[in-house]
Amino acid sequence: MAHALALVLERAREMRLREIDLPLVPGPDELRIGIRTVGICGSDLHYLQHGAIGPFVLRQPMVLGHEASGVVLEVGSAVRGYAVGDRVCIEPGVPRLDSPAVLRGVYNLDPSVRFWATPPVHGCLTPEVVHPALFTHKLPDAVSFAEGAFVEPLAIGLQVATKSRFKPGDVAVVLGAGTIGAMCTLAALAGGAAQVVLADPVAPKLARFAQRRAVRTVELPRESLADAVSQATGGWGADVVIEASGAAGAYAGISDLAGPGGCLVLVGMPALPVPLDIVALQAKELRVETVFRYANMFPRALQLLASGQVDVRPFISRRFAFASAIEAFEQAALGLPQDLKIQIDMPGGAA
Amino acid sequence: MAHALALVLERAREMRLREIDLPLVPGPDELRIGIRTVGICGSDLHYLQHGAIGPFVLRQPMVLGHEASGVVLEVGSAVRGYAVGDRVCIEPGVPRLDSPAVLRGVYNLDPSVRFWATPPVHGCLTPEVVHPALFTHKLPDAVSFAEGAFVEPLAIGLQVATKSRFKPGDVAVVLGAGTIGAMCTLAALAGGAAQVVLADPVAPKLARFAQRRAVRTVELPRESLADAVSQATGGWGADVVIEASGAAGAYAGISDLAGPGGCLVLVGMPALPVPLDIVALQAKELRVETVFRYANMFPRALQLLASGQVDVRPFISRRFAFASAIEAFEQAALGLPQDLKIQIDMPGGAA
Amino acid sequence: MAHALALVLERAREMRLREIDLPLVPGPDELRIGIRTVGICGSDLHYLQHGAIGPFVLRQPMVLGHEASGVVLEVGSAVRGYAVGDRVCIEPGVPRLDSPAVLRGVYNLDPSVRFWATPPVHGCLTPEVVHPALFTHKLPDAVSFAEGAFVEPLAIGLQVATKSRFKPGDVAVVLGAGTIGAMCTLAALAGGAAQVVLADPVAPKLARFAQRRAVRTVELPRESLADAVSQATGGWGADVVIEASGAAGAYAGISDLAGPGGCLVLVGMPALPVPLDIVALQAKELRVETVFRYANMFPRALQLLASGQVDVRPFISRRFAFASAIEAFEQAALGLPQDLKIQIDMPGGAA
Amino acid sequence: MAHALALVLERAREMRLREIDLPLVPGPDELRIGIRTVGICGSDLHYLQHGAIGPFVLRQPMVLGHEASGVVLEVGSAVRGYAVGDRVCIEPGVPRLDSPAVLRGVYNLDPSVRFWATPPVHGCLTPEVVHPALFTHKLPDAVSFAEGAFVEPLAIGLQVATKSRFKPGDVAVVLGAGTIGAMCTLAALAGGAAQVVLADPVAPKLARFAQRRAVRTVELPRESLADAVSQATGGWGADVVIEASGAAGAYAGISDLAGPGGCLVLVGMPALPVPLDIVALQAKELRVETVFRYANMFPRALQLLASGQVDVRPFISRRFAFASAIEAFEQAALGLPQDLKIQIDMPGGAA
Repeated sequence: MAHALALVLERAREMRLREIDLPLVPGPDELRIGIRTVGICGSDLHYLQHGAIGPFVLRQPMVLGHEASGVVLEVGSAVRGYAVGDRVCIEPGVPRLDSPAVLRGVYNLDPSVRFWATPPVHGCLTPEVVHPALFTHKLPDAVSFAEGAFVEPLAIGLQVATKSRFKPGDVAVVLGAGTIGAMCTLAALAGGAAQVVLADPVAPKLARFAQRRAVRTVELPRESLADAVSQATGGWGADVVIEASGAAGAYAGISDLAGPGGCLVLVGMPALPVPLDIVALQAKELRVETVFRYANMFPRALQLLASGQVDVRPFISRRFAFASAIEAFEQAALGLPQDLKIQIDMPGGAA
Repeated sequence: MAHALALVLERAREMRLREIDLPLVPGPDELRIGIRTVGICGSDLHYLQHGAIGPFVLRQPMVLGHEASGVVLEVGSAVRGYAVGDRVCIEPGVPRLDSPAVLRGVYNLDPSVRFWATPPVHGCLTPEVVHPALFTHKLPDAVSFAEGAFVEPLAIGLQVATKSRFKPGDVAVVLGAGTIGAMCTLAALAGGAAQVVLADPVAPKLARFAQRRAVRTVELPRESLADAVSQATGGWGADVVIEASGAAGAYAGISDLAGPGGCLVLVGMPALPVPLDIVALQAKELRVETVFRYANMFPRALQLLASGQVDVRPFISRRFAFASAIEAFEQAALGLPQDLKIQIDMPGGAA
Repeated sequence: MAHALALVLERAREMRLREIDLPLVPGPDELRIGIRTVGICGSDLHYLQHGAIGPFVLRQPMVLGHEASGVVLEVGSAVRGYAVGDRVCIEPGVPRLDSPAVLRGVYNLDPSVRFWATPPVHGCLTPEVVHPALFTHKLPDAVSFAEGAFVEPLAIGLQVATKSRFKPGDVAVVLGAGTIGAMCTLAALAGGAAQVVLADPVAPKLARFAQRRAVRTVELPRESLADAVSQATGGWGADVVIEASGAAGAYAGISDLAGPGGCLVLVGMPALPVPLDIVALQAKELRVETVFRYANMFPRALQLLASGQVDVRPFISRRFAFASAIEAFEQAALGLPQDLKIQIDMPGGAA
Repeated sequence: MAHALALVLERAREMRLREIDLPLVPGPDELRIGIRTVGICGSDLHYLQHGAIGPFVLRQPMVLGHEASGVVLEVGSAVRGYAVGDRVCIEPGVPRLDSPAVLRGVYNLDPSVRFWATPPVHGCLTPEVVHPALFTHKLPDAVSFAEGAFVEPLAIGLQVATKSRFKPGDVAVVLGAGTIGAMCTLAALAGGAAQVVLADPVAPKLARFAQRRAVRTVELPRESLADAVSQATGGWGADVVIEASGAAGAYAGISDLAGPGGCLVLVGMPALPVPLDIVALQAKELRVETVFRYANMFPRALQLLASGQVDVRPFISRRFAFASAIEAFEQAALGLPQDLKIQIDMPGGAA
């Protein structure tokens, strides 16, 4: 254990930038990493505001943050393939390697996953962390720290796109143009969609896609989503409909947006059960896929960023210094339409 | 058009066995078929009782029946591969061959499908029908007319099993032990399931599976389904959960029955939207498949019946002569626990 | 039948631009189409040089050409959704709609497919053709006739990409940078690949991809393909290896290029059986997919061209007038490195 | 290390039943297991006869045997869920849990797998072994030790059936009726096949399936396999063709056995590259799957044995005591037609 400065969530609605004891000696399979950039995520804000997400309840002070890039400062004795100075981004969920979910290839579904900034596990808004090398990924030269800290939300979009099983030339609908909806849109286009019909009630969120010819934005309720989908698909309906808003209202008529044999992918998390018209799903034999974080997506995200097939840079709206982390969170909590992703520049640590 | 005796649904709650005009001259791609056996289906009973299913409303008298086997009596001029005397069973839904759904391999989803005994299309409770050869399937020698008339509901079970994408050794749960639940159970076992946990509140329905070592029956609510599933899967949860009851109540806690990465298949049709806990689906990344009739399943059903991998004979509970068709329907409408499938012996027609 | 000018292959190595009798009255489900652009394909050249491809042997004069766009001149009586003046491209293979392959969703595999410029079926190097509306596809406004005539080879690339089942972020290898290899490269990138390693011995073919950051070209044998793949994948091997050269030599060590659990897609057609190391495939449990033309790919190609996700224009190297069609074929037959796709501008026909 | 009696392969063609030093103290995640039954596998015999399989060369004495069941004698300190006295079977391949192949769900493809009786790793023909609990599987009450020792080859059949992606009602061809072919046949029928056409030149091997109505045996070359397949599939061809003989000759015309869009699964391992007609594969767009051992199949095998969906007991032809292990191997090496699986009864060990 060592004393370190960190952004600590003391309890709901109370953050402090203060010293806290954190383990900073890497085990044999671990790395010590100096954190360079951290993105603020909606779940960070949810813990800040409510002190809990579902069954995960804050019961003791917890360091926030789970979207991070950094530099390797120290290499555990059994680790191969990493060296001090390596630029990396960090996958924040670590399963037990001997869980049945891991052997089946769905390590994200291991109930014993330890995930940063999910009580009681500390996050990464602190200069240094130790983390298993297996869940630390090297940044290609072409990928900046800011992009590296964006890999985590992009990985969710890629999990969505993978579950969609896009075929090249599909038409997709994305409901919700927040960070997750934006990442789903990028992932859909990188993953095979010819066109994305992106719907949201907040015009500035849609405006980010104004330059992309393959994105048709629909400002709800001013514009008709049904009409846009019908036009984009010659009346057949979309191949894939991605629900990324989490709004229960998005489920009304959702089956009408898809074509026969199409797919709904649910990544938004509505707080309560939503009424679903089963017969409407059946009449088109729709497949419904659901997403919980991601597995094996960090290397894919990095390949796509490195080759330029995905560009997340336009979605980083503001940056704050670590010393201003509380202000950064306060701004993020305002949910201004022009803010998509706010990132915090960290001091890194000492080799 | 020709005059023929038929079981006619005049309007809701009124059947008559009477003469009606039916087209009986086969077109170039059609067969004239003498009907030998017809099974009574829940949808027949629903039209009888309510005069409508969803958007399909009875507006003029309609011949009932859509589960049929028979003998070829006449062969259209362009048909190849069929001869007078061929024993056949008949697929009751006929799509437009030039619809986009057909080219995509999902002919069951063609909105212009004409389906027997679905208003305004006449069914098969009459001595003879004409039907496209393409949707008429020869019975292997080992398959009786009674089994041939059972292919239609079995095809639904096979569509369910196909959508489940069973891997050999899976554990499945089937909710509902009526005809569809029973067919899903047989199809699951033929399709890869090592074990089916079959739940229903009606003990006699479950009793039909008493001799099958691979079926674990659960009498609800006397027995705990959750416990049975946990025991069958070592606590992991089922690979596939098939909802075949159509009861909205079956959806409460349905995600708890499945294991991480598992699948729900929805074939039962609840009358109203049901509240669904999206986050519970997501926490296990469950896939949800829905089923609407079947495509390309009749040949598969016949292969399975012919090779003995599926045996539907124990599920035929009673037989009636065509002259007693009204009594047969009245009995079927009682829904006696010991009745699974009631069939009607038809006179066939004249070559 | 009507007299029409056409590029006719009289026998191997003998073409003539001459009058020939062709059916030009559309049936009820057909369109009469004025041809505007036709691309020259390797199979056209193969018939020219050899008079046969495998079992398809030229036994009587045949009109060449199967990559076409045009304008609707006349609409069959039963056709809906098309009007005179519609800009279209044409899918050259027409299956029997009542074949088992069609019902199963693999209409390209129907043995009775009639395919343009495949003996004895005439092709499209003539001012007008009649064709089933079902296999005629409207061009979006943003897609030119030249691009429309490029849809056919692009459709092969899309069939390859679909069979590959790309996940977003995959790394692909493409062997061969001719037209098919180029289309596979574009389709792979549009279909999910983060990066394509494209290998060919002819530098000018590779040079077309010099500006694409996501394409790493490898000039064989000067550069090491194995090294390039290892570097692109961190030593793991490619997710998908696409054999698009048809050269038997490409199969030597092909399994070494793929990673464990990866996929080989075979679209190039080697003239003779090739020795394949089965144990090398097994040691990585590679999946091998094979491609024969395409099914349901024309609408996907048009979506991708319309949205700009795929751009085939850089691959059109030269254009000839119909009157110079023989010169166009002679040039194409030279196989100059700088020529990828040569197209012929057709006069269209008369409404 | 402890002294233990074992069947030791000293070098090619020389076995001895002698004392050898083996590690018998379980690590924290391991079990010590008393071996009760061991099956003799073709690979054991291959090492005996040749001293090597491909790159795996015997360079020092090695204990033979990798198909085992037994009883837990001691439980490592960190193991949960196992107790002394538990009846188990043992998965002989152990990957590194932190390998990329494990995270991707294909742990069988980890190049660093340690596999029993594959040089230099010792096998299980000795009274006791230590083994990771994660790769040790409890036997259901209904499954005997003899069946437990049969799980390993059955797991290969299940891997084959899983890769086949059977749909219920498929028709399969299995080439080769040795142990692997027999397991593939059982797995195909349990996994969805309606019928298996099983071909082999050795009549007694085929005779084991004489009582199974769903198996059509073909004695080569006396009977025509092509005819049998055509008859079983109405001329369309098989959905799945499984090559389980390892004979290069089996590849001649193999594509003719499959229907359009069908699948070849290659599990037999031909010693040399085989000439493959790529165009014949392409003309039907066949998919080729390859199999290397298995992943996640032991629990599936146990479910199928416990529920009676698979019965391997008829395939155990002879049993020998451990003291007669050398005789057992000598008999197995004769490859008598009536011998399918020879098992050795082991003394178990001491708790």
